[in-house]
Amino acid sequence: MENFVFYSPTCFVFGKGTEATAGQYVKKFGGTKVLIHYGGGSVVRSGLLDRVKKSLNDCSIPFVELGGVKPNPRSGLVYEGIDLCKKENVDFILAVGGGSVIDSSKAIAAGVVYDGDFWDFYQGKRIEEALPVGTILTIAAAGSEGSPDSVITKEEGMFKRGASGDAIRPRFSILNPELTQTLPAFQSAAGITDIMAHLYERYLTNSEEVEVTDRLIEGLLLTMIHEAPRVIENPNNYEARANIMWAGTMAHNNSCGVGRSQDWNSHSIEHELSALYDCAHGAGLAVTMPAVFTYEMNHNVMRFAKAAVRVWGCQMDFEHPEVTAKAGIEALRNFLISIGMPKNFEELGAKEEDIPKLVDVLCNGDGRKGSISGFTTLNEEDCTKIYQMMV
Amino acid sequence: MENFVFYSPTCFVFGKGTEATAGQYVKKFGGTKVLIHYGGGSVVRSGLLDRVKKSLNDCSIPFVELGGVKPNPRSGLVYEGIDLCKKENVDFILAVGGGSVIDSSKAIAAGVVYDGDFWDFYQGKRIEEALPVGTILTIAAAGSEGSPDSVITKEEGMFKRGASGDAIRPRFSILNPELTQTLPAFQSAAGITDIMAHLYERYLTNSEEVEVTDRLIEGLLLTMIHEAPRVIENPNNYEARANIMWAGTMAHNNSCGVGRSQDWNSHSIEHELSALYDCAHGAGLAVTMPAVFTYEMNHNVMRFAKAAVRVWGCQMDFEHPEVTAKAGIEALRNFLISIGMPKNFEELGAKEEDIPKLVDVLCNGDGRKGSISGFTTLNEEDCTKIYQMMV
Repeated sequence: MENFVFYSPTCFVFGKGTEATAGQYVKKFGGTKVLIHYGGGSVVRSGLLDRVKKSLNDCSIPFVELGGVKPNPRSGLVYEGIDLCKKENVDFILAVGGGSVIDSSKAIAAGVVYDGDFWDFYQGKRIEEALPVGTILTIAAAGSEGSPDSVITKEEGMFKRGASGDAIRPRFSILNPELTQTLPAFQSAAGITDIMAHLYERYLTNSEEVEVTDRLIEGLLLTMIHEAPRVIENPNNYEARANIMWAGTMAHNNSCGVGRSQDWNSHSIEHELSALYDCAHGAGLAVTMPAVFTYEMNHNVMRFAKAAVRVWGCQMDFEHPEVTAKAGIEALRNFLISIGMPKNFEELGAKEEDIPKLVDVLCNGDGRKGSISGFTTLNEEDCTKIYQMMV
Repeated sequence: MENFVFYSPTCFVFGKGTEATAGQYVKKFGGTKVLIHYGGGSVVRSGLLDRVKKSLNDCSIPFVELGGVKPNPRSGLVYEGIDLCKKENVDFILAVGGGSVIDSSKAIAAGVVYDGDFWDFYQGKRIEEALPVGTILTIAAAGSEGSPDSVITKEEGMFKRGASGDAIRPRFSILNPELTQTLPAFQSAAGITDIMAHLYERYLTNSEEVEVTDRLIEGLLLTMIHEAPRVIENPNNYEARANIMWAGTMAHNNSCGVGRSQDWNSHSIEHELSALYDCAHGAGLAVTMPAVFTYEMNHNVMRFAKAAVRVWGCQMDFEHPEVTAKAGIEALRNFLISIGMPKNFEELGAKEEDIPKLVDVLCNGDGRKGSISGFTTLNEEDCTKIYQMMV
């Protein structure tokens, strides 16, 4: 096991009706003037935004609002948020929404206290300081509610890039599974896929003998396999929603990622898809993961066989472990299809003729030098083959 | 899933040589004058204490020392520590040792800033305020390095009782598996048993459908089953030590205990044994758990069958699930014996004739009213039968 520091100081407030405590948690973590940041439609229509405002009012905490965050959140709104916070002397950002809203909030939080262009953080500069952020989560997916990460797309060039730093870990995150019960099945499934991808990206390691991390990941994947069909069948199944929501947080606050290398090639390869086609990140991952894993399989057949046996219940083929490894990847693919995810470029809305462009931005865009690197190193030729496998 | 708040803000610094960072972490978390609290022999002999002092000196942080913590730590030394801290204006407690040292440090930390008798907290008063505590862990066992709990034995009456509060969660915990490599096999095994008990106490719930918590617990138990024999066979197996150490922390910071009721009857029943005979807590649990589980089994046969199948690899007997449930408890018992734990009162050094006294203190001592309550409620008759099963 490699040396590590694990620090997850987010206060998770979980359960029915917990959004009513938003005001008291903002106060507890020092906020005196809040920016409520959100997307649009559903948060307003469902009355959630009004309940959050009431909670702030009840605690006599003034606020301003900025809605309009879109999936795959854009830098333009981040700049707008930074300006608004400076003008209004905001000292706390309250994200009401999913991963996109939270990531946009984190970018604003870092940008407000930084003299330069916030995009510097998305080009590799570590975030050391930020306004405190709190979240009220409306979809189990990105794990941003418990992570030190944020992903933003820059309109010029459509670069989708990530930034990181303990300073943007939310101070508190309010997780009410009831809020996810109104999600359309497709969005629920895309969130589930994203959570499973966060687990697979951590499972595909080049470090040896971190059994505890393997076992935690396997446990969370088994939870998803058990709960996902229940949610797709009955969107109002609170217990299934609750299990998925907490698994999603645990999948990405790095509880199950410590002490070893991780992959993240699937995320990088997918990010170009959602940046170009604006598809749901989870849907993109459903198409990307089986292709990437099949391509990477021979790098460590036993690792894929382990997942196949322990997570997917495949029988171990001791003479031909690659058969078992492949069966595990197929089981993942079939599972994702079964919950309604797309299986190829066509269903995703992607185009084969764009592959050269996708590969170029992926491998050379924004400072990269011809390849990406995780579980394996993938150059332009590798990435071209992987995208072609998705067609 | 029941509503819950999960807040684990401890900074875990894990890996080889990490004790050298003690000074910088004390500084990071605001300490300017430290009490180093420890046990005795091994911490001094191994040179660890000197390395910790050097780290504080390198950071120009003054300190005083209080050694002498014994297993099943006593209230007498806590009072001494409180007086010393007040006299020396200490503002940070640094625990160097195992669960006993950490628990004693937490008691001192709470007592220093409290006007009354610190024992009030061990009679049910919640700890709301305390000096900050940091730890350098030397045995994987109690999980106190990541928990809001402390257990102290009061000399008058030999009451062994627990206190709790987020204020005594360590600000940081330094976990270096190398420090555990010099432990005798018996102590390693007792620690392993304690960790497994923390997992079983959380597994035995009366709440339904918290699959995510079940799966995380099962994963950590499977890790222990894989790693424990490797450590007993080769005490210098760093990877196995590392897996056990991190599993021990995760087993007790409540990552795998949220959203549902827990048991803790085994701990209560054992506490009377270690209070009276001063045996190792883990050794006492090895004798206690199989008896308690066998006694509690019919309360929920399927729960024990689940553990038997998923954790111990037992075949499910669909006609007679109680056979499977029992097989799982036997597998646990045999596993604990195989790593060198005692199996009955005699091997533990306990005496059958003391059972009435044990039961009386357990069920009536220190404010209790004739029973203890967890997965099941156990009155004096139940507890008598359970102790008799251990003979």
